[in-house]
Amino acid sequence: MTAIVPSYLQDRWWTPEPAGDPTVVRDASTGEVIAHVSTEGLDLGAALAHARTVGQASLGALTFHQRALLLKQFAIALTERKDELYALSARAGATTADSWVDVDGGIGVLFAYSGKGRRELPNAQVYLDGAVESLSKDGSFLGRHIHTRLRGVAVQINAFNFPVWGPLEKFAPAFLAGMPSLIKPATPTGYITEAMVRILVDSGLLPPGTLQLVSGSVPTLFTSAGGSLGTGDLLTLGDMVSFTGSASTAASLRSRTPSGVRFTAETDSINASVLGPDAIAGTPEFDAYIRQLVAEMTSKAGQKCTAIRRALVPASEADAVVDAVRRRIEEKVVVGDPRTEGVTMGPLVSLEQRDEVLGQVRALEEGGGRIVIGSATAADPHGAFVSPVLLRFDDAGADAVHTIEAFGPVSSLLTYETVDEAADIVMRGGGSLVTSVATHDPDFAASFLAGVAAGNGRVLFLDRDTARSSTGHGSPLPSLVHGGPGRAGGGEELGGIRAVLHHMQRTAVQGSPQMLTAVTGAWHTGAATREDGVHPFRKPLTQLRVGDRIASASREVTLDDIETFAHFTGDTFYAHMDEEAAAANPFFPGRVAHGYLLVSWAAGLFVDPEPGPVLANYGLENLRFLTPVSPGDSIRVELIAKQITPRETDEYGEVRWDAVIRNQDDEPVATYDVLTLVAKE
Amino acid sequence: MTAIVPSYLQDRWWTPEPAGDPTVVRDASTGEVIAHVSTEGLDLGAALAHARTVGQASLGALTFHQRALLLKQFAIALTERKDELYALSARAGATTADSWVDVDGGIGVLFAYSGKGRRELPNAQVYLDGAVESLSKDGSFLGRHIHTRLRGVAVQINAFNFPVWGPLEKFAPAFLAGMPSLIKPATPTGYITEAMVRILVDSGLLPPGTLQLVSGSVPTLFTSAGGSLGTGDLLTLGDMVSFTGSASTAASLRSRTPSGVRFTAETDSINASVLGPDAIAGTPEFDAYIRQLVAEMTSKAGQKCTAIRRALVPASEADAVVDAVRRRIEEKVVVGDPRTEGVTMGPLVSLEQRDEVLGQVRALEEGGGRIVIGSATAADPHGAFVSPVLLRFDDAGADAVHTIEAFGPVSSLLTYETVDEAADIVMRGGGSLVTSVATHDPDFAASFLAGVAAGNGRVLFLDRDTARSSTGHGSPLPSLVHGGPGRAGGGEELGGIRAVLHHMQRTAVQGSPQMLTAVTGAWHTGAATREDGVHPFRKPLTQLRVGDRIASASREVTLDDIETFAHFTGDTFYAHMDEEAAAANPFFPGRVAHGYLLVSWAAGLFVDPEPGPVLANYGLENLRFLTPVSPGDSIRVELIAKQITPRETDEYGEVRWDAVIRNQDDEPVATYDVLTLVAKE
Repeated sequence: MTAIVPSYLQDRWWTPEPAGDPTVVRDASTGEVIAHVSTEGLDLGAALAHARTVGQASLGALTFHQRALLLKQFAIALTERKDELYALSARAGATTADSWVDVDGGIGVLFAYSGKGRRELPNAQVYLDGAVESLSKDGSFLGRHIHTRLRGVAVQINAFNFPVWGPLEKFAPAFLAGMPSLIKPATPTGYITEAMVRILVDSGLLPPGTLQLVSGSVPTLFTSAGGSLGTGDLLTLGDMVSFTGSASTAASLRSRTPSGVRFTAETDSINASVLGPDAIAGTPEFDAYIRQLVAEMTSKAGQKCTAIRRALVPASEADAVVDAVRRRIEEKVVVGDPRTEGVTMGPLVSLEQRDEVLGQVRALEEGGGRIVIGSATAADPHGAFVSPVLLRFDDAGADAVHTIEAFGPVSSLLTYETVDEAADIVMRGGGSLVTSVATHDPDFAASFLAGVAAGNGRVLFLDRDTARSSTGHGSPLPSLVHGGPGRAGGGEELGGIRAVLHHMQRTAVQGSPQMLTAVTGAWHTGAATREDGVHPFRKPLTQLRVGDRIASASREVTLDDIETFAHFTGDTFYAHMDEEAAAANPFFPGRVAHGYLLVSWAAGLFVDPEPGPVLANYGLENLRFLTPVSPGDSIRVELIAKQITPRETDEYGEVRWDAVIRNQDDEPVATYDVLTLVAKE
Repeated sequence: MTAIVPSYLQDRWWTPEPAGDPTVVRDASTGEVIAHVSTEGLDLGAALAHARTVGQASLGALTFHQRALLLKQFAIALTERKDELYALSARAGATTADSWVDVDGGIGVLFAYSGKGRRELPNAQVYLDGAVESLSKDGSFLGRHIHTRLRGVAVQINAFNFPVWGPLEKFAPAFLAGMPSLIKPATPTGYITEAMVRILVDSGLLPPGTLQLVSGSVPTLFTSAGGSLGTGDLLTLGDMVSFTGSASTAASLRSRTPSGVRFTAETDSINASVLGPDAIAGTPEFDAYIRQLVAEMTSKAGQKCTAIRRALVPASEADAVVDAVRRRIEEKVVVGDPRTEGVTMGPLVSLEQRDEVLGQVRALEEGGGRIVIGSATAADPHGAFVSPVLLRFDDAGADAVHTIEAFGPVSSLLTYETVDEAADIVMRGGGSLVTSVATHDPDFAASFLAGVAAGNGRVLFLDRDTARSSTGHGSPLPSLVHGGPGRAGGGEELGGIRAVLHHMQRTAVQGSPQMLTAVTGAWHTGAATREDGVHPFRKPLTQLRVGDRIASASREVTLDDIETFAHFTGDTFYAHMDEEAAAANPFFPGRVAHGYLLVSWAAGLFVDPEPGPVLANYGLENLRFLTPVSPGDSIRVELIAKQITPRETDEYGEVRWDAVIRNQDDEPVATYDVLTLVAKE
């Protein structure tokens, strides 16, 4: 017997010694036995407990930025050994191009989350959500939303088709949020996930308890009959299940997850790709549509939850589409063992999967489809090879084509007459991960999107302008939400920081400005300030504290100043130059100072000119002009350190300052945030 | 027999003619029969279909702002007739103060959503979520997230305790999002909800199909065994269920909701209120804590899902707390018929509810509690009166106090020794809507919050600074999320625009800048622009189009300009004034122009000085300085209309302009958005 694929539990490798017959995993092309899979004797409860204690503690000691930097190091460690993953992936039927999607794609998710984590999250553990809400007229009682990490385990159940990308696209946002992961790969390709996890373990970079791997089934995980918590389930409040796989399994697991445990699913859906009415044969959009359709049928041998299952084209173009697809398949597609030179499409992952797909093709035939390209037969007794299959349905309303998924190189051609009909047909899928549309007509694009947006997690427009740069129908991207309503599982993954927040609890916090400052780390208007005689611009990041304040002297604005500024800048807008016209404007009492004069003067009022820790003013946010300033008015400015974000890898960090310009009557003239870079020492 | 409470279905009032015995609803104080309830013969499927067709069409014809304005009109209509609702509410046991919470609170939600809708949503139907994501190096392929309304019905199942606020806090965000509502009140107070809906119907303002009322049970709604869609369930993809009520009912309904239908729940939870270690007897925090605790025990006779069920205090303060609570109850609480002068606390809603609560009090006693204030007895045969009850648990770890809810004027006192212990005890509730904390110690506040945030939807800090302005432990606010994890239902309501988005589908859209512009209505960098010889500042809102562009001439920046600006503004920061010091700065090549000089000049370059439709520049967003400008460099600016938001009730609207300043080498020097007010004509 070949080895049993080990699990990685409680920071140690573990291999079961099964009494019964473990599951056999075979090479997709040759049928050769690769590995055995068993979890007999698995102590799942101990693994979950380890994550909740040791894993939570490890991540609790790190800020978002520190976790993000680790993600980058994980990505580098995987990059250095990715050839090992390519070689194993070939055994599961993946061509080199398929491995780019899975292996490099997975590494790309780590890099992307590392970058986004440092750019878009604070270097802290609490994420502030939205603006301050004023809850009392006097400003003494405020509200603010924060996100803090869930205090349980992220249980990640993956599909066989992406043994590297699949686990990593779930792990990256969980890790960044501060939740430990328990990864459960699918049996047919779990040995590839094991190799990926081994590289991470070997790197020595994984904080204890933050990643565990169960190489096999987890029969005791979903024992709940749904319902309330506290019934002795292994899963409990604070845990989260992220499932990728079939819609039917998702529905079953969802109903067996105790309430209080988050459940999210991303399931293979009956995605559509639509040829616009303008994208007739001969247009660049037609060509791009055909290329994309064949690419999606053959990439990963069609074993992608985002693959195109329904090709929806104007009735007039149907024959041209079939011809063009046939030509392109003949030209480009060579099915075979991916380790053989010249092969462009590998086998399905297993003979079982092949038979399942061919059965679904026959079900589509029975449901009204006829095969116009390829066939529903299999010849090789050892290799799970299936050639691309295109079916054609004369009745676009046939149930089968909107409900049956053949999870292989299989698409069905449907036709439509009107835009509304096209949208309705797409929506028949009952919710999809993605719909793509080849069109160069903005009006069609807009009305079609209005008809299908609510039924799709992603919609891709393909035209001559994006034919080269498009990342394609089938590619989820780290920065965009992956998931869809209804049939597609109803969940959301990726989407940048959105997926991180899905691993966190949003809490509304109410209290005084002082309390909100204390619990969020960000200064809130009305909280205590510090003036210790040292200009805050003279304080390096290590000495600066939120609440450090500089209040400027007052400066009178004269008509002469306004004219000087107008002539210097060229901004001779009538509100500054013409008393009568300005007074006729609904917002001005007469000639007023330029807004830019006010913020420029404010800088002059608060600046500390000599070299010091403040390196640069790199921007400004949320500027609002609230009260016009007339000649004879005076202004002064108050600047308070609001948020301090030291960088992990630089000798400086960002400081956001709260700036308020007031006039001689204490009315706020302008409010804004000044963004600066400040040296640590 | 008194009348059966009518339902409002398919834009008509409907009253069943039951063959059997309809449910009887009685006055909470006197036992007098008020109404009967039945839905025998209800055609729920027709009502749902009406919402999905007529209701969706009505709302689809309106923008966010138009819907928001209707919400305001609904609020005004209810305000004019709110005395009718007060009178009815008294029959259900509500004092005038209770009605302020329910009736005025509900009207307040409408006003709040009307305001937020117009301030925080565009005057359009699509909501843009987050920043543009660049998906190709050349900028030809972009991603953007949009929210579009769900295309089904918002089914809103409400609890008996808030017959006005409850339906309205669900209806307002659904309506604003563009989803029609089907309101199902609870039987004991459904006649009050009916009166509220009648006022809205009488106003003539309700668009057809946007609000329906089922005054009674909906037995056919949840027939699913969970699982996939398409099994003949009445609910289908695009529908949403918002449930308020008990945790056990929520769990049951959730498991019977077909997948693809959103389900959110807000359930009565075992909320805690914590007296901080610093808030000993004699401090303002102690007094505020006692006032709030008694208020929450007695408001709505404790029939609030947000009421304080667990009062957690330092062991040293327990006796003082009991004494203070007893004194305050004696001083302030008069239980009786709310129509009687001097009564401050009404009965529970019904005799059944009274018996249920008294049973739970006995269960708490059996679980280790002993009654220290009040008693678990009822005397009146007709009125559902219960006096406030405080139990005391010597063992804070007793299961009963963390799991049993007595949904009436009942709280239990627990003690703690350390901060960690306090947090652990709070978390024993298994997820709560709200925890409040009386403390003036920021360090305690911060560490306590870190321990409990993930288990709470809301956390309120109470101290001397907020004792007067605090809205209180038990008050959900329109601007803050209402809901909590685990036992509290796992859902989110309110929270301003967040609740609107819960009624919408988020979709990632990919395409060329031109396509994203076409489908979102907002101009995207790289999309076509228009220069028709008319300065865009001369175009009123009705003529201006996104993409309208002005490209300025170029202007050279001299050292003299920098010095002039420095001396005029007072901003003599060394990076502008001292060549050697500037060059030593890591970001500057030598002396550079002030950022504010650049944006001031840019305004001079793009401004059109004569009076015209552009009324004011009211602010600026997202300013980033990207490339330093040295003496001898030249700058020019490009301004493009990016978003146009006409106001419904003013003769002008907002226009957001995309501004890019470039140098002589075409490098971007600064990017920002200019915010202006522009007249419609």
